[in-house]
Amino acid sequence: MSTIMRKVNVLSRSEGVYRTDKLGIPELKNCHHSYVFAICNNPGLSQDDLAKHISVNKSNVARTLLYLEEKGYITRKSGEKDRRINGVFPTAKMLSVYPKIKEITMEWNRFLAEDLTKEEFEQFQSILERLTKKAAVYMEGREEK
Amino acid sequence: MSTIMRKVNVLSRSEGVYRTDKLGIPELKNCHHSYVFAICNNPGLSQDDLAKHISVNKSNVARTLLYLEEKGYITRKSGEKDRRINGVFPTAKMLSVYPKIKEITMEWNRFLAEDLTKEEFEQFQSILERLTKKAAVYMEGREEK
Repeated sequence: MSTIMRKVNVLSRSEGVYRTDKLGIPELKNCHHSYVFAICNNPGLSQDDLAKHISVNKSNVARTLLYLEEKGYITRKSGEKDRRINGVFPTAKMLSVYPKIKEITMEWNRFLAEDLTKEEFEQFQSILERLTKKAAVYMEGREEK
Repeated sequence: MSTIMRKVNVLSRSEGVYRTDKLGIPELKNCHHSYVFAICNNPGLSQDDLAKHISVNKSNVARTLLYLEEKGYITRKSGEKDRRINGVFPTAKMLSVYPKIKEITMEWNRFLAEDLTKEEFEQFQSILERLTKKAAVYMEGREEK
């Protein structure tokens, strides 16, 4: 069985290039776009929950949130349920770029899939869903140092 | 049509976490693994050709190669065909981690796909191939500033 991940990664990186081209905000790199989605859609998530949501290491999330905080895209406030845990919230600056990033992402998705029939698209999506669930089995079972 | 890229990106990032967990070399982050593959499989590629091969911006490649050079993973030599263009070559240090990264990547691919039938896998791969070609249409048509 040949591998699928090389192509999955090429799709992911090409989207990154497309979004960076279209957005034209040099301080927002490709890796930040997923944070914009995650934080605007789920304001108040803790740093650890963001790591799970985005599927990255805790150390990655910590580094990226620090960067986004310095650039004025996020703020942190202590949680309503547990005041010891800080939640991550989008600032007005992040909320103002969110619609554009969303639009660009939709454009890329439409462009990629425009030559597929509805059946092909649904087949692809259904297997992709199973692969993502499989990946989640690993992510949930690992113990992060 | 709902989007497919969120799941594609989750797969890509989960692989990154898996490879980082299994490799255990903190100075080699997820984003470097694709460089190890590209450089060990195609020694002597120019920086610009590497950007195309990996599907990233030229500025990304420049930054990452600088990092890999500082850490002793690559060297640059002027090309045989055109002495003005430097080719990127793996050092012994990079060549020594390559088999392990390859093995980990194969493991992840096997793990992900182990619940699919041969037919499902082939269907998925065939559509993935078409999507990757579509992404390449964008990558080839863009003009990088």
